[in-house]
Amino acid sequence: SDAAAGTVRLAVIPGDGIGPEVTAEALKVLEAAAPAGVKFEGTRYDLGAERYLATGEVLPDSVLAEIRDHDAILLGAVGGRPGDPKLPPGILERGLLLRLRFELDHYVNLRPSRIFPGVTSPLSDAVLAQGDVDFVVVREGTEGPYTGNGGSVRVGTPHEVATEVSLNTAYGVERVVRDAFARADRRPRRRLTLVHKTNVLVHAGKVWSRLVDEVSREFADVTVDYLHVDAATIFLATDPARFDVVVTDNLFGDIITDLAAAITGGIGLAASGNINPDRTAPSMFEPVHGSAPDIAGQQKADPTAAVLSASLLLDHLGHVDAAAAIEAAVLADLAARQPGATRTTAEVGDAIAARLA
Amino acid sequence: SDAAAGTVRLAVIPGDGIGPEVTAEALKVLEAAAPAGVKFEGTRYDLGAERYLATGEVLPDSVLAEIRDHDAILLGAVGGRPGDPKLPPGILERGLLLRLRFELDHYVNLRPSRIFPGVTSPLSDAVLAQGDVDFVVVREGTEGPYTGNGGSVRVGTPHEVATEVSLNTAYGVERVVRDAFARADRRPRRRLTLVHKTNVLVHAGKVWSRLVDEVSREFADVTVDYLHVDAATIFLATDPARFDVVVTDNLFGDIITDLAAAITGGIGLAASGNINPDRTAPSMFEPVHGSAPDIAGQQKADPTAAVLSASLLLDHLGHVDAAAAIEAAVLADLAARQPGATRTTAEVGDAIAARLA
Ligand SMILES: CC(C)[C@H](C(=O)O)[C@@H](O)C(=O)O
Ligand SMILES: CC(C)[C@H](C(=O)O)[C@@H](O)C(=O)O
Repeated sequence: SDAAAGTVRLAVIPGDGIGPEVTAEALKVLEAAAPAGVKFEGTRYDLGAERYLATGEVLPDSVLAEIRDHDAILLGAVGGRPGDPKLPPGILERGLLLRLRFELDHYVNLRPSRIFPGVTSPLSDAVLAQGDVDFVVVREGTEGPYTGNGGSVRVGTPHEVATEVSLNTAYGVERVVRDAFARADRRPRRRLTLVHKTNVLVHAGKVWSRLVDEVSREFADVTVDYLHVDAATIFLATDPARFDVVVTDNLFGDIITDLAAAITGGIGLAASGNINPDRTAPSMFEPVHGSAPDIAGQQKADPTAAVLSASLLLDHLGHVDAAAAIEAAVLADLAARQPGATRTTAEVGDAIAARLA
Repeated sequence: SDAAAGTVRLAVIPGDGIGPEVTAEALKVLEAAAPAGVKFEGTRYDLGAERYLATGEVLPDSVLAEIRDHDAILLGAVGGRPGDPKLPPGILERGLLLRLRFELDHYVNLRPSRIFPGVTSPLSDAVLAQGDVDFVVVREGTEGPYTGNGGSVRVGTPHEVATEVSLNTAYGVERVVRDAFARADRRPRRRLTLVHKTNVLVHAGKVWSRLVDEVSREFADVTVDYLHVDAATIFLATDPARFDVVVTDNLFGDIITDLAAAITGGIGLAASGNINPDRTAPSMFEPVHGSAPDIAGQQKADPTAAVLSASLLLDHLGHVDAAAAIEAAVLADLAARQPGATRTTAEVGDAIAARLA
């Protein structure tokens, strides 16, 4: 079932802070996992805080056009020092990360959450005894409160009024809901949970509820339930084993996937894929964590999330065996970790790559 | 420092499901805690799912006017059977609960979170060993994404588009930020954390950041920091002791206070006050939990959250010693609970009331 041999053209955006360090390890592991006859050809794009501060450029149109002409994108992390007055909030997020997600139509933001053997969760043994935690959040990636729609009047005065508009279309909701159902249908438990806040955000809630209901008729084997986002956070803390596939909007997905990362051992392990299932543009794979400028350049970052993102990349490109091999190597590496022992970023990458040899 | 003797006129809205059961215990404890010379005079309002299903009425204007003419409101919980086709999502939430919060200008939604001695948290011992968990969330209650602003076109068709508009005013943000700073300034750690998503919701984020910054100049002793809402959920799961006072918008506050309730022992213990600090209308006190129709009428609900909400009510009315006495009685009751032993709703209320005698 694996994809054909050939050259995979990767756009690589190492970004800021720990981004370059974890990206280097992800690329190392990708090479080590490459199926026979598959070659990776990477083009580096130096986008991020550093470039913005030096040149004022965030994502020039010409660069976006070049990136578009690749098979996939591997991104490390972007973001400068928190509170840097020369880097107002949103410049990089909206101008680079979200612009890529929106322009390349990454409508499925895929975030698997699993407590790997050997990993320490902040949850108690009693909570964890309820069952294996292994779910995936399908977060909508191209609309909702993330469109940038909204504005302000009388900025900086006591009369300032600011709006943020969440845009929800049947077109946009149906396609991500359909993708989530298809994923649920391929998993043993075949369970899908819609997370929203339909009792308050009634307009948007109505579209989401209706389309989950409609699409569910095509997936008779998938059991559907619904949770308000506030209740979902309770269950993530008290009974995470109940989740299988979660489908939710852009903002709720952002919030619950960070919580999901926390309870499954931290954002050092959380991978994500910004996926364009229609393959009209390259999909983008990135760890959920940020650029962590405080530990940048010190070889302290855990590259596992970036490595697992590379596994999602291979899976998306059809190299399913190689993707599974990376995941197995990560599992083995995690299980072999000695409590208290520290390794450099490169040592972790080396160890995972060695298991693939 | 306690308020004067006299009659406290309470509007009591027991509501649906377990609402009436927990409200009865809250009233029982209020009576037991009443300072010398203070009398409670309750008027019951049968608002909620039952009344709506029977009459189509949610909150008639005349009833709202009557409720307004009280010193405070005690609310149990409202909400019918989930998925009841005769009760579309939002009818009661928007028409009753949120209408009360908005019309009575409850701009401070106060939600204390504390791990009481003897209570089981879903967090691991290693997480809890980091320090005592005792913080309060000051959630904005009258604007943000909760205004009901927004709408839909082409409902039910593939071309449906729905919007939800978050409204944020400098007026509305400043007053709740000011309240949060004043609370932080009265607490030993004097720490305030703004939770928002300023890197994506840049218009609203700018108002919040600016006003926290401006008001902070009046509170030189309060240390301020900022967390994105997604990062806040991580810290709530991995280091909740770091929080002291959190100020946040209506939707983020909804989400993080449910998570906060979960990690501090469950929504059976989480109290809240919908407060009008200017006292231009009565404030409303209610447990964070819902109506739990599945266990209604079975005396299975824990009334502690409702009892603690009654303590917040007394505190708001200036009966600070009586409020503290209820909290102490709850603490003693929690510490004396036998693992595995079950008590009826009334037995818990009786036990707490007995400690006040
Ligand atoms: C950096 C930010 C724009 C981004 C988001 O909110 O989507 C991040 O938190 C994430 O989850 O990928
Ligand atoms: C019932 C619902 C409208 C309400 C809210 O979202 O505020 C509830 O979740 C709460 O937290 O009080």
